[in-house]
Amino acid sequence: MHCYFNGAIMPVEQASVNINDLGLLRGYGLFDYFRTYNGVPFQWDGYWARFVRSAEVLHLRVPLTQAQTAEILTELHRLSGQPDVAFRFVLTGGYSPDSVSVVEPNWLIIAENLPKDNPEGRVRGIKVLPFEFVRDLPELKSTNYLHMIRLAAEMKSQGAADLLYYKDGEVSELTRSNFFIFKGDTLVTADKNILHGITRKVVLELAEKEFKVEVRPMLVSELEEADEAFTTSTTKWVMPVVQIGRQIVGDGKPGPRTLKLLAQFEALVNGYGK
Amino acid sequence: MHCYFNGAIMPVEQASVNINDLGLLRGYGLFDYFRTYNGVPFQWDGYWARFVRSAEVLHLRVPLTQAQTAEILTELHRLSGQPDVAFRFVLTGGYSPDSVSVVEPNWLIIAENLPKDNPEGRVRGIKVLPFEFVRDLPELKSTNYLHMIRLAAEMKSQGAADLLYYKDGEVSELTRSNFFIFKGDTLVTADKNILHGITRKVVLELAEKEFKVEVRPMLVSELEEADEAFTTSTTKWVMPVVQIGRQIVGDGKPGPRTLKLLAQFEALVNGYGK
Repeated sequence: MHCYFNGAIMPVEQASVNINDLGLLRGYGLFDYFRTYNGVPFQWDGYWARFVRSAEVLHLRVPLTQAQTAEILTELHRLSGQPDVAFRFVLTGGYSPDSVSVVEPNWLIIAENLPKDNPEGRVRGIKVLPFEFVRDLPELKSTNYLHMIRLAAEMKSQGAADLLYYKDGEVSELTRSNFFIFKGDTLVTADKNILHGITRKVVLELAEKEFKVEVRPMLVSELEEADEAFTTSTTKWVMPVVQIGRQIVGDGKPGPRTLKLLAQFEALVNGYGK
Repeated sequence: MHCYFNGAIMPVEQASVNINDLGLLRGYGLFDYFRTYNGVPFQWDGYWARFVRSAEVLHLRVPLTQAQTAEILTELHRLSGQPDVAFRFVLTGGYSPDSVSVVEPNWLIIAENLPKDNPEGRVRGIKVLPFEFVRDLPELKSTNYLHMIRLAAEMKSQGAADLLYYKDGEVSELTRSNFFIFKGDTLVTADKNILHGITRKVVLELAEKEFKVEVRPMLVSELEEADEAFTTSTTKWVMPVVQIGRQIVGDGKPGPRTLKLLAQFEALVNGYGK
């Protein structure tokens, strides 16, 4: 696989950053991740718009236009020799003379093999662990994924696939995906303290055709009343959540409404770009 | 200047990390910073102990013992050809096969020129801007310094040198230094939601000989009653704070008790290791 780094395309193994990069020294960086279906980057306009907004929050100049970036994606895809690929963006504060000042951002675009999509999780559902936390600048897809990595062993020991963040009585999101519950035919998802996921947006559009949709603060106390729950992300699609800590959701199996949304999303991506 | 990286000593310009480092991709990294006086690393035992504790929180194995590390510091210092140097530690989650799993940490030890010590700030005092925030895992000296860099231009435009974090009515710390106020002869500093600074510890030991010291939650409402304020860090020593947002502290000049502690600290470091 190849990557793009500050103007050049090179094999991933040959790419490296100097040690005065502010992403490395100070965690000053943005992240994004998306993939192609049928060779076409899925919802590329949405990912790009979010990336540009995030860069503005960090006062980082995006070095290329969307059209220039699209050309690079095409070339990285071609070099992969694969029908479909994933792309990882990392935009950092760049090399700093004093480990504080931003001079010029560093921009990495990495082509990767498609993620393992955990088909078993989609069939059986996953368990998540409640964790009291709210991300700093939650609308920003920063490179800060401290808890996800720090608590990986704890999750594994409890048979859990992820953390469910809550704070001050409200549920927000998982470490890198959005969270939904069904109460009867009403679908609820948080409106704030979340990353505005592209898959979340697509799933909400699908759901609005059949269900009552409420985008509003989700209370921790509502979790007990949930008939179904699921999470959405670029890699997870619509992934049923069947256990939250010790609490079983519904009957402990992926719910029918969740599976319906999953089937609709799967049909959408399978036909994407065709 | 030279650095140590995973077993080898090399010129700083030649050191780089591969792009699958978890510090770069996921902000999964620790930071520390200390310096020598009269050629001897100041309070080295204290910095080392904190570094090891932080590494445990992130479940990262510190690759060397304290003695082995001390040998590297000596060599980096020798190569610098300078009487005194600063050292920067960066310990990351290392190279990851899947951008999530930790296999083996990457450890960078960078020798640097001594920081500019802002002697004017110590004479005139600095202004800080209140900012509602509390660090995630505040006892951890992680690489996450997002706000410090993101708001640098805002600080500059307001003539401020730093941010003063507060949350839920309590004051904690600056972006990378501890915070104290004097009310008469009583010195107050926060006990929690802070990094346990080495300079903070040394200054508290000096202060206990002459003042009443209260290490406890500091309320935002107490700032108005402060006669003096200051901040402490490895690079700032004892730096008077004379303005907090729009509020002038005391008479707007460095206070006599603050200056006394500064003089004592200066005498201590000037004689360190002699």
